[in-house]
Amino acid sequence: MNVINDEFYMTLALDLAEKAQGQTDINPVVGCVVVKDGRIVGMGAHLQRGTGHAEVHALNMAGDQAEGATAYVTLEPCSHYGKTPPCSDRLIKEKVKRVVVAAVDPNPQVAGSGIERLRNHGIEVVTGVLAKRSARLNETFNKYITTGLPFVTLKTASTLDGRLASRTGDSKWISNSDARAIVHTMRHRHQGIMVGIGTVLADDPELTTRTEVTGVQPTRIVIDSQLRIPDTAKLLNTDVAPTIIVTTYQADRDRIHELQERGITVIICGSGPYVDLPFAMKKLGELEISSILLEGGGTLNGSMLEAGLIDRVTLFFAPKIIGGTLSTFAFDGFEKMNQAVTLDEIEIETLDDNIYISGLPRYHHL
Amino acid sequence: MNVINDEFYMTLALDLAEKAQGQTDINPVVGCVVVKDGRIVGMGAHLQRGTGHAEVHALNMAGDQAEGATAYVTLEPCSHYGKTPPCSDRLIKEKVKRVVVAAVDPNPQVAGSGIERLRNHGIEVVTGVLAKRSARLNETFNKYITTGLPFVTLKTASTLDGRLASRTGDSKWISNSDARAIVHTMRHRHQGIMVGIGTVLADDPELTTRTEVTGVQPTRIVIDSQLRIPDTAKLLNTDVAPTIIVTTYQADRDRIHELQERGITVIICGSGPYVDLPFAMKKLGELEISSILLEGGGTLNGSMLEAGLIDRVTLFFAPKIIGGTLSTFAFDGFEKMNQAVTLDEIEIETLDDNIYISGLPRYHHL
Repeated sequence: MNVINDEFYMTLALDLAEKAQGQTDINPVVGCVVVKDGRIVGMGAHLQRGTGHAEVHALNMAGDQAEGATAYVTLEPCSHYGKTPPCSDRLIKEKVKRVVVAAVDPNPQVAGSGIERLRNHGIEVVTGVLAKRSARLNETFNKYITTGLPFVTLKTASTLDGRLASRTGDSKWISNSDARAIVHTMRHRHQGIMVGIGTVLADDPELTTRTEVTGVQPTRIVIDSQLRIPDTAKLLNTDVAPTIIVTTYQADRDRIHELQERGITVIICGSGPYVDLPFAMKKLGELEISSILLEGGGTLNGSMLEAGLIDRVTLFFAPKIIGGTLSTFAFDGFEKMNQAVTLDEIEIETLDDNIYISGLPRYHHL
Repeated sequence: MNVINDEFYMTLALDLAEKAQGQTDINPVVGCVVVKDGRIVGMGAHLQRGTGHAEVHALNMAGDQAEGATAYVTLEPCSHYGKTPPCSDRLIKEKVKRVVVAAVDPNPQVAGSGIERLRNHGIEVVTGVLAKRSARLNETFNKYITTGLPFVTLKTASTLDGRLASRTGDSKWISNSDARAIVHTMRHRHQGIMVGIGTVLADDPELTTRTEVTGVQPTRIVIDSQLRIPDTAKLLNTDVAPTIIVTTYQADRDRIHELQERGITVIICGSGPYVDLPFAMKKLGELEISSILLEGGGTLNGSMLEAGLIDRVTLFFAPKIIGGTLSTFAFDGFEKMNQAVTLDEIEIETLDDNIYISGLPRYHHL
């Protein structure tokens, strides 16, 4: 059973924010609930970049009842003019009495100044209520706003012996339908979805969000150092989402031109033979790709991990053992066990007989 | 909270049986609780091969109160003369009124005849109460008594990318102390512990049960087709438990003799170059090894899996990624995903940030 308290209302605000994941572009997801005299009088979430913030929607719904009310906001109200006016001013104007905040905004343009502004106007501000859940919801935003680099979530489905395909490359299907449905929801929640050219050549994927209800289509990103992608690739022949190909100066100029003519964005990262992955992340960040779902193959997974460019590792295990050599992470490997990449803040869920494991990599070899 | 019913008392009987796992040799673990007029009047478990069965201990405790009582037994009471007289006769003699049985004894010498005998003497018999838990407790007995072959539990600890060591072979430690403590308890519960010569040469293990309280030491079994085990191996220089070396006719005769002189049992299985593993299981069964804990390395794990000789797979995952090529199952691998060995009746537990997964392999390639 529930107990009404600050966490009770903040949970609703977080639920509102969570549902909007994937539709706010580079913006954070934020929820807001306004409560007056024991009744919810307004609720809202930030729904799309360039449109109203969560507080604005909730205060609009509350109308006159905002005066003297408590506003629960999952992220510190902004204090700066972005595409919309500052929310802290609106809260002040509406004479809200108390503001409860989950997480402080890491955006250097905010970073506590929104809270300070409210307090300077006599509003009681409480912070840190369910802060961890709020930070988890906006982990991609939090990295991007502070570094300009995309937050990279690696996702891979494997057998219990760490294989992503049979020795002949057969990978349909490793995981069960529950796990696959989650993967498509993960695509919906990321701005980019990235694979290596090996995966394109082996599986010819569309890299689209295929959910029961319509989802957001992320930009498809292919790491293809020699521009080996064939004209027949489904990626090049479906226009549900933009496609970016990341290559090197070893790529053929005419081929680059051909691809650009087809509407593909080609980025050159390094002199080759391999793509300069840290530089690629920087370029993708500049293109306002703030979050990337990295969907392997093993070689790209291994290279990204060795370079320390993965921010979250999410693995789906199917209760199978298949042998062979096609591993989820194909790289030389570390010399000592204590150099292994470890995962912190592990989350584990069972999906029928499949297992979801997610955590934050800590790099001890760098 | 508990509700007193047949399951309430059977749970206690099963708890008694479970604690005795590892100390009954090739015998099953069995618990018995005797209840009269709402009070427990006797309880017992089979503790050691050749000594009293669970029913005998519990009835001894109950004394005169057994008359008209209900006896809860985790395994069908025996009806044959083994090392002790039949328990069904003792229950009849004590004038027990009702017998509740979890699992029917798969032993072809019993297999329902114990229950029949009781019913023929007017005792009400209920079967199948918590049968699944009883069968799980005696999975090794159930296989051995019906086939004469040992039940093989594979145990391996790995990183999330399926590696059991770093590329240089460093494996100390993959899993956390909770997981390692469980492994030692698993050793206590198996009659044999089996490794390949590769593991002996790489790690020089003692293969002993190291538990906080004293545990039972299983027989150490090494698969060593060319008898490469060095005289300095710890296995050969500790006598806490017997050691069996399984080799082939390619092994040097003088070396076999030397090892036998040191008290090692040497079994020859096949003409080589590799040990005939199915034949080895048969020979080990003949030596009354009814359960084996298989602790890798990857090559032996892979060979045993390919041959379909593993009855349970138990994996401990540590939240680490290490790369390299040292896999938990090293074998060529299957061609198609649908040939993969799958695990049924999956059990999953989290041990802090480690994960325990156990299941029963189903072989689709054989």
